[in-house]
Amino acid sequence: MRTLLVIGIGAGNPEHLTVQAIAALNRADVLFIPDKGSEKSDLAALRHEICDRFVTNAATRRVGFGVPKRAEPTSSYRSTVDDWHEDIAGIYEALILDELGDNGCGALLIWGDPMLYDSALRILERVRQRGNVDFAVEVIPGITAIQSLCASHRIALNRIGDPVLITTGRRLAAEGMPDNAGTVVVMLDGNCAFRTVKDKDAIIHWGAYLGTPDEIVIAGRLGDVEDRIVATRAEARAAKGWIMDTYLLRKPGEAEE
Amino acid sequence: MRTLLVIGIGAGNPEHLTVQAIAALNRADVLFIPDKGSEKSDLAALRHEICDRFVTNAATRRVGFGVPKRAEPTSSYRSTVDDWHEDIAGIYEALILDELGDNGCGALLIWGDPMLYDSALRILERVRQRGNVDFAVEVIPGITAIQSLCASHRIALNRIGDPVLITTGRRLAAEGMPDNAGTVVVMLDGNCAFRTVKDKDAIIHWGAYLGTPDEIVIAGRLGDVEDRIVATRAEARAAKGWIMDTYLLRKPGEAEE
Repeated sequence: MRTLLVIGIGAGNPEHLTVQAIAALNRADVLFIPDKGSEKSDLAALRHEICDRFVTNAATRRVGFGVPKRAEPTSSYRSTVDDWHEDIAGIYEALILDELGDNGCGALLIWGDPMLYDSALRILERVRQRGNVDFAVEVIPGITAIQSLCASHRIALNRIGDPVLITTGRRLAAEGMPDNAGTVVVMLDGNCAFRTVKDKDAIIHWGAYLGTPDEIVIAGRLGDVEDRIVATRAEARAAKGWIMDTYLLRKPGEAEE
Repeated sequence: MRTLLVIGIGAGNPEHLTVQAIAALNRADVLFIPDKGSEKSDLAALRHEICDRFVTNAATRRVGFGVPKRAEPTSSYRSTVDDWHEDIAGIYEALILDELGDNGCGALLIWGDPMLYDSALRILERVRQRGNVDFAVEVIPGITAIQSLCASHRIALNRIGDPVLITTGRRLAAEGMPDNAGTVVVMLDGNCAFRTVKDKDAIIHWGAYLGTPDEIVIAGRLGDVEDRIVATRAEARAAKGWIMDTYLLRKPGEAEE
């Protein structure tokens, strides 16, 4: 049977790779690599740097593939994502059939960890349900941007005994700070949704390009630093042409017992 | 200035160690290792196995230290934890002063990631505030039990675009499934709090001894598998003398848009 390795490669620092991930890269006959243009060119270069540094198995091939662009959401975000995932499932299916022998082993390299706001596992499940090719899946965890953020700020994610909500910028803007968690981690926020939070005494820990030499981190009372984060983010984005950032917001003080 | 490296060593699989963590272990003059008795003997052995395998710097010493037991919570959980942390801060302070030279580098090895339900960073902050010794802190992230759980079950943590709540068994039992997240991850649950969840159509993904050769995973509709998890957990705990487990619960279906 064919095997697909879904490998977390960390949040941007090649040294985030685990011993398990390096072994997996070298077990694969084929590394499936998105073509340039599918992602920011810096990230594409970094992905190749990771392969150059850690793949020592001379038999391992790299095969590029194009990733379709997601359509602009129309009436339904869900159905737009659905169509997009179906397109990618077709591409994955062809790669598995065309590039892997009957007992071949292929690998997908995922930024961060495949478990966190990533769709590779869901798309592979679609491929399986199409019924045209059978394969096993193994998942290798990787360091996420959340962990990189906390490490750079040298902080715990949670207050003592207190829950944490991981959410999106869209949901934070719509719902505000939650009642049931003292800490909120915000992913996928292109619009600085932290500005909509009413409690300006909340503490924010923000980071961009986490784990890379370009890393920027800012922390402080939301009311004191939010404008600086917005300005820093806009400048960095203009200078580099892209930005990836994440942040956590924490209610001031300790959790109630 | 002295440096303390706070190193995440993964959830139980030595292959979870990152390249960065291995380099950090070898940068340290001293690895501070809790004495046997401070933790389950299997974990103590595993910690030494990790050091034996990855520490190649012959100059790196290991120094053991006793960890006081936490008192049984009396009137206030917070003040019990407070006293306990203060005790450990005193121990850390003595280790830093006695075992590290003026520019020495020490390391604490933390299961999982120092950011997640771990107190080492908070306790080091206490040591700093006592004002008797100055030092820098560097944090090296590690693979958490949550990531190991999702990898073993080959699942994404979140539904598409949907938040995730990380909480404790105590809070799940008190509050039930949250309204603002489709997925709940439960840590530190000694009492199988999933039994208190009313929606038996929720899907549970449970795992114990994650990442180790003894790993056990069970998944399914809560109503169908909860009794099996309770029984499996009790048996495994009796056989080994201890258990560490975690799980996630997910509402059935997809998130609303």
